[in-house]
Amino acid sequence: MEEIKIFAPASVANVSCGFDVLGFCLDPVGDEMIIRKIETPGVKISKIVGQKLPFEIKKNVAGVAAEAMLAACPLKFGFEIEIHKKIKAGSGIGSSAASAAGAVFGINQLLGKPFSAHDLIQFAMEGEGLASGSPHADNVAPVLLGGFTLVRSMNPVDVIKLPCPSELKAIILHPKIELKTMHAREILKKNVSLKKAVTQWGNLAAFISALYTEDFDLMSRSLVDEIVEPMRSLLIPEFEKLKTAAVEAGALGFGISGSGPSVYALANGIQDTNAIADSLSSSINQVGIDFEIHISAINNQGIKVISCK
Amino acid sequence: MEEIKIFAPASVANVSCGFDVLGFCLDPVGDEMIIRKIETPGVKISKIVGQKLPFEIKKNVAGVAAEAMLAACPLKFGFEIEIHKKIKAGSGIGSSAASAAGAVFGINQLLGKPFSAHDLIQFAMEGEGLASGSPHADNVAPVLLGGFTLVRSMNPVDVIKLPCPSELKAIILHPKIELKTMHAREILKKNVSLKKAVTQWGNLAAFISALYTEDFDLMSRSLVDEIVEPMRSLLIPEFEKLKTAAVEAGALGFGISGSGPSVYALANGIQDTNAIADSLSSSINQVGIDFEIHISAINNQGIKVISCK
Repeated sequence: MEEIKIFAPASVANVSCGFDVLGFCLDPVGDEMIIRKIETPGVKISKIVGQKLPFEIKKNVAGVAAEAMLAACPLKFGFEIEIHKKIKAGSGIGSSAASAAGAVFGINQLLGKPFSAHDLIQFAMEGEGLASGSPHADNVAPVLLGGFTLVRSMNPVDVIKLPCPSELKAIILHPKIELKTMHAREILKKNVSLKKAVTQWGNLAAFISALYTEDFDLMSRSLVDEIVEPMRSLLIPEFEKLKTAAVEAGALGFGISGSGPSVYALANGIQDTNAIADSLSSSINQVGIDFEIHISAINNQGIKVISCK
Repeated sequence: MEEIKIFAPASVANVSCGFDVLGFCLDPVGDEMIIRKIETPGVKISKIVGQKLPFEIKKNVAGVAAEAMLAACPLKFGFEIEIHKKIKAGSGIGSSAASAAGAVFGINQLLGKPFSAHDLIQFAMEGEGLASGSPHADNVAPVLLGGFTLVRSMNPVDVIKLPCPSELKAIILHPKIELKTMHAREILKKNVSLKKAVTQWGNLAAFISALYTEDFDLMSRSLVDEIVEPMRSLLIPEFEKLKTAAVEAGALGFGISGSGPSVYALANGIQDTNAIADSLSSSINQVGIDFEIHISAINNQGIKVISCK
């Protein structure tokens, strides 16, 4: 195999009660990447379509991730990467994670899969480190493993793939406002009350149980975030109004995707999903903010091969 | 049915990463209670063996729990309760929970089970309120439901029964020192760092997943408590030494039971269980503290009927 074309999906991290640990993978939203073997050792970004991103390897998340991987596995040949960017940068649905995970996934395929998907998380995290200042796995993990993932620990990296009921669907609303991750991070308090922390871990534990038992009512009761959402939602216009619209239309839960500005809703079945998407559109239309809505299954496979030669 | 004899088991709450939410039920350790119908309405404690406890209903946890239940279901007859106390008060393995849960379970049986086990939790919590100052469910829930339980929320009460791998065993070491729950509570800080809270909920979420998948390695990696144990363990003599002894003998995890002074270890299979019990005995023998050790399966049934007539 000399060349591979892949689909690198978007993802939702910081899923309500699962701040910093719980994420899931989206389906039709994602980038395409073409990776091919070249004679010169190392990595080269040969083409970027759809966004202005640096071609310099050390400044490009895909480049950094690919180099981290090649450092662990030196070769006499190299790779060039084409990135066809479709996920909007800064939208909060894992744009950099898709590129970082895509690069290492593609190279691993071309090498005959010497690394497991869990191994690849470590390399892709290096790309995330460039994008956000510190390596984190909560978007690259769902992209590489698919479905819902739990990052138990970052040191050492310990990621668990969780089950994913097939009826579960996601709605992503991207209000087109600028929101810097840095700003969303600064607004967080360093300390939280033990009481709220207990509430949060009770909810997350219940949500995990509900994924195993496919208990949608319990999912709904536990998709609550008393710690981060009260602060970060202040940065998202009309957050409470949108949340009410989603919940009234049948959403199991509604919260911020990543560090925003995108918001997500989860739904049981396609009928509820469409109703929630309609309700969110009409709510945000009323306040005149430009937006985009994605409807998605939970992508239980994760990153996919489109073609190869 | 006029009279029932029941086994009301001990339990472990605050299971490491599951502070305030996760508990499990023990097997051979527990009280016996006899409850019989009497003509006079209301509740009467007729006999208490094994411990000095108040006979006055409003000062007895079993009495308070039983009265809470009868308030929800007024009757023209009443009940008398005999308590054969075997769990040591203040040992940290749910002595008051056993009495409170036993009373409401027994009466419910004599009434033909008008209430579900989940309903009974609410009544038993009232007894716990008398014992500790505020109603809590983390011991009465595993006693009434069996196995591992998760208290997702206290308001409204929302308790989930979790799966319990049959190979899982518990070792309880009760160092015979006095440790007031009040003191163990005062030592807790009101605020915790967000970073440590994230670690804790990552671990708890992973432990829940491990119970479903019977992944004993993951259970072991996630039975960690960075929030409460570092403080409360200071009140338990030789805690670190005992922890090392347990872990070196094969314990999956080791921590404080309830608010102490008892400590628990979890093990995979009876062979490890015996080795851990031996190792803990010899460690605590060296420091000359009087103690008791219990070896227990996880009691997946919970409270049991011994006989009735």
